[in-house]
Amino acid sequence: MKNSVNKFLSLYNSEKVKVEKVLAISLRKRNPESLYKPGEYIIAGGGKRLRPLLVLLSAMAVSDKKIKPYYASAAVELLHNFTLVHDDIMDNADIRRGRPTLHKMYSLDTAILVGDSLLSVAYEYLLKDCNGNAKEVLKAFTQGLVEVCEGQSMDKDFELKQKVSIEEYLLMIEKKTAAMAEMCCKIGAYLGGGTEVEVKALSKFGKNIGIAFQIQDDLLDISADEKEFGKIVGGDLMEGKKTYLFLKALSKAKGEDNKLLEKVTERKGIKQNQIKKYKLLYQKLGVLEDSRDEIINYTKKALFSLKVLKNEDDREMFTWLANSLIKRNK
Amino acid sequence: MKNSVNKFLSLYNSEKVKVEKVLAISLRKRNPESLYKPGEYIIAGGGKRLRPLLVLLSAMAVSDKKIKPYYASAAVELLHNFTLVHDDIMDNADIRRGRPTLHKMYSLDTAILVGDSLLSVAYEYLLKDCNGNAKEVLKAFTQGLVEVCEGQSMDKDFELKQKVSIEEYLLMIEKKTAAMAEMCCKIGAYLGGGTEVEVKALSKFGKNIGIAFQIQDDLLDISADEKEFGKIVGGDLMEGKKTYLFLKALSKAKGEDNKLLEKVTERKGIKQNQIKKYKLLYQKLGVLEDSRDEIINYTKKALFSLKVLKNEDDREMFTWLANSLIKRNK
Repeated sequence: MKNSVNKFLSLYNSEKVKVEKVLAISLRKRNPESLYKPGEYIIAGGGKRLRPLLVLLSAMAVSDKKIKPYYASAAVELLHNFTLVHDDIMDNADIRRGRPTLHKMYSLDTAILVGDSLLSVAYEYLLKDCNGNAKEVLKAFTQGLVEVCEGQSMDKDFELKQKVSIEEYLLMIEKKTAAMAEMCCKIGAYLGGGTEVEVKALSKFGKNIGIAFQIQDDLLDISADEKEFGKIVGGDLMEGKKTYLFLKALSKAKGEDNKLLEKVTERKGIKQNQIKKYKLLYQKLGVLEDSRDEIINYTKKALFSLKVLKNEDDREMFTWLANSLIKRNK
Repeated sequence: MKNSVNKFLSLYNSEKVKVEKVLAISLRKRNPESLYKPGEYIIAGGGKRLRPLLVLLSAMAVSDKKIKPYYASAAVELLHNFTLVHDDIMDNADIRRGRPTLHKMYSLDTAILVGDSLLSVAYEYLLKDCNGNAKEVLKAFTQGLVEVCEGQSMDKDFELKQKVSIEEYLLMIEKKTAAMAEMCCKIGAYLGGGTEVEVKALSKFGKNIGIAFQIQDDLLDISADEKEFGKIVGGDLMEGKKTYLFLKALSKAKGEDNKLLEKVTERKGIKQNQIKKYKLLYQKLGVLEDSRDEIINYTKKALFSLKVLKNEDDREMFTWLANSLIKRNK
């Protein structure tokens, strides 16, 4: 198993290098510079490039490793960065991947327009890899875009809502995060020439791994090691965000504990020196374990749907990927 | 001729009604409301719906009136409204079609996200009308989107640039305005099953009529009748905008006249009580006539490319449309 893990890691790393190359040229030598330089700035900010990997792995899995749609991989990353640029404005975020956000580095107007432009190039790049099944691929990509807008709108709504149920929260992350992962796997499967059964299986994998990924994100925010995390641990509580952990805690807490949690919503966040107290409350209520259980459930569901894949090596690759996501520390 | 003009006007009006119906349902019954209600607000603001008409007329012209892609027509109007919503933020505009702009009516965050969402639904709607040639149609649509972002970026650049040549200005409006009209005709022609020759001819028509339309817009800003115009006549001068008329005047003016014009750029606009003085200068320099000549030139070029259309009735319809655009007063 150790050997195959190394094999998967080196596949991930080598594919990541290739995706970076396509991304790097996607905005180069275009005019006006006022539009594409800031675009290059955000793309150069790096990231795990997980979404492109989902496209590639899905295409490879259904095509006996023969088809690798790099343009489409770059397209999903461009789309992802479009959402980051616009979301950072709405979240009033100053820092992204250790550097000033685009609207801080340039201006609000530039950030709006560059976001739009990243999306336009995303479609352009996706089309480069499309042939006979352009309609299905574009439909899936567009569906992902529609949902990511809806998810972001729900997320903003939640900031103002007093009560949010766990079901509502799950619907929001399905749209905001999971729809994108689902789309990556779906277009990869289409572009690789997969059967309808394979397309469905990989889409389901993407969706469930996306939900697991987001709950893991919520969990890391409170349980991560600050040095490795690169951000303030407990940041979601400071912002008063209604995360999976927070909503789960709220649903379990009674009496004084409940009042303490409601204060987070009422006051739109807590001070940094209160984080420890809330983490202890989360531990007392068992919501860290609850989250871990949910992450494992969704990951199992994701992997279960891959039974239809013929090649064991592909299934192992996805298993490695899923496990890496669960065990990540940032 | 009078009879056929009535025929064309009534065709325009009846098709507009049908486009409005498709537009009206495009955002209805979708969730969350926080996203789609503001979207409906902007769509309900009305407008001439010229872009949808270009799609329909192009499709009809190449298909013996058999094909009318209403979804694609709605798509180009949704795309157009996406640009309006984001441009209004960047232009800090308070009023659009006599009502508060989206970011004034709701909020900046909502306007950014609703713009994105209008674009997502635009692609969704366009795909509804695509079949065998989805790739060509989507490519043309995406090319239009890429260029409209580039054009807007150039337009914003011009605000800060001291010197802008007429060539640079024409490139900017080709991207910001004409590329969209070109795209409408192109996708209409594709969806109608036109030959490559017809697609090219209609694209060229769209591009040139788009340039004529924009110069006409610049001309109207100073020459319109205030009552019919619905906006302040001379608004472009007040904002210090580098329009076709302004750049043409600058290229012709000498001595004191030149200094007077340069003041507009230096001071980033003039006061309302100075408009009359500048209009007189424009008249003295003959730039109103120059603009009219250019509008007629581009319109002739547009109509000339339609010689390949078989049906005389179609050519007459486009001629009527082109002439209506030239003679419009708002």
